[in-house]
Amino acid sequence: MERDFDRAIALVRQDDGSLLGHTSPAYANMVGPFGGMIAAQVLNAVLRQPDRLGEPIAVTVNFCAALAEGPYTAVARALRTNRSTQHWFAELRQEGQTMITATAVTAVRRATWAADEQRMPDAPAPEQCPAPQGRGFVAWLQRYEMRLIDGALPVAWDDAELPHSISRLWVRDAPPRPLDHAALMALCDVFFPRVWLRRATRVPVGTVSMTVYFHADAERLAATGDDYLFAQARGQGFRGGYFDQTAQLWNRRGELLATTHQVVYYKS
Amino acid sequence: MERDFDRAIALVRQDDGSLLGHTSPAYANMVGPFGGMIAAQVLNAVLRQPDRLGEPIAVTVNFCAALAEGPYTAVARALRTNRSTQHWFAELRQEGQTMITATAVTAVRRATWAADEQRMPDAPAPEQCPAPQGRGFVAWLQRYEMRLIDGALPVAWDDAELPHSISRLWVRDAPPRPLDHAALMALCDVFFPRVWLRRATRVPVGTVSMTVYFHADAERLAATGDDYLFAQARGQGFRGGYFDQTAQLWNRRGELLATTHQVVYYKS
Repeated sequence: MERDFDRAIALVRQDDGSLLGHTSPAYANMVGPFGGMIAAQVLNAVLRQPDRLGEPIAVTVNFCAALAEGPYTAVARALRTNRSTQHWFAELRQEGQTMITATAVTAVRRATWAADEQRMPDAPAPEQCPAPQGRGFVAWLQRYEMRLIDGALPVAWDDAELPHSISRLWVRDAPPRPLDHAALMALCDVFFPRVWLRRATRVPVGTVSMTVYFHADAERLAATGDDYLFAQARGQGFRGGYFDQTAQLWNRRGELLATTHQVVYYKS
Repeated sequence: MERDFDRAIALVRQDDGSLLGHTSPAYANMVGPFGGMIAAQVLNAVLRQPDRLGEPIAVTVNFCAALAEGPYTAVARALRTNRSTQHWFAELRQEGQTMITATAVTAVRRATWAADEQRMPDAPAPEQCPAPQGRGFVAWLQRYEMRLIDGALPVAWDDAELPHSISRLWVRDAPPRPLDHAALMALCDVFFPRVWLRRATRVPVGTVSMTVYFHADAERLAATGDDYLFAQARGQGFRGGYFDQTAQLWNRRGELLATTHQVVYYKS
């Protein structure tokens, strides 16, 4: 069975070497697609390159303009290839305009001393956390099963300022799908805007730039399978129309799979 | 008096629109220049563009190859210009090869609700912390006055694994220099490699990609002046030859000026 996720990131090679993709209504957000899906699509443009070396280590995606529902052209170029690392620049374009840019570092990983210094917080197992209720007010929310532990959206939008913006949840694709780097990239963007939580006010927002550092290779992701991930996010600074968020994702065994950061525009 | 820092980031416009710079022996590291200086140089290539809109919000620098001591060519292109935001791609090249790539988001900031959720930890004033001793074993360390609070380099390189890699220090340019975005960009890279602290072993390392989110506009940086910044860093995950670091920089008043992350190659 081909899943929504795989359909959504699919790319078809064109005669000029570029790749043709199409936004997916299954991952629609309020305006345009879910940013995590866009990030997965542009990463996939790198992963699909035949001369790609190794696995993704660091990916930064810049949301230059609101991607319109419809086709897009993806291009990815290796700007530098070293012995075990490679540096990529990628773009998604619509009607000749740059909509999304990205840089990616891919590398051949080697076994080394290892440690997960950021430890997964203690939490009840996902099966003990409340299953999601309702269908979510935008399409992409239906593509994820989120079992919230704490830091939910305010029950009342009453401008009651909260002292922090930490959210913790178990999350996986819905329906469940074996984890890979593209799916993990998208999962790094499942957190609702931290400013909504802090302010208990739903102000207009939009992610401007997002970075993911992968701590897991394909083997570790495959071993994680389609199980829940523990995801945690918090805001750091909010000022002058932009705030940032830092987040971590672990598998159930407490293995740190990715750390991620983003800066988000907000209004008022 | 022109300072080392200003000389080091200086760029001369060429007939073809590119900028010509030169690495600075004053900021030399063990192999090639201090990465923070390289990051400041590539940011400066964006800041020097006459059509630049607003101030830097997010900058990602990718260290593709070891910059050699000598001249470099900097190019910066606006890939997308919106009403109040602009998306840049920049490169430093030597002998026609891509050595450094960067993306930058610049934007016109607006007054909004604001909060510094990441609070500056309690610490003694910089004047109460020990002044640096000795001259540092590489040139760039002499360009910064670092007053360490905790998380110093191990006294003995004895492989005694430490449980965490948090370092906290007061830091400013030496000699003192009024703060601006380029100087703050460089300051975001002053932390020694977290893996050295965790392992008490000096293994080979190199930053691969670094992102800075600026939370302060030019006015706030000017108000900070040449005073000390409080800087804090910690590692999150170490595995497969790469670790990441998350860090924050505040001014003495506890105003969050920048948050920054990087992923670093390490050996064995």
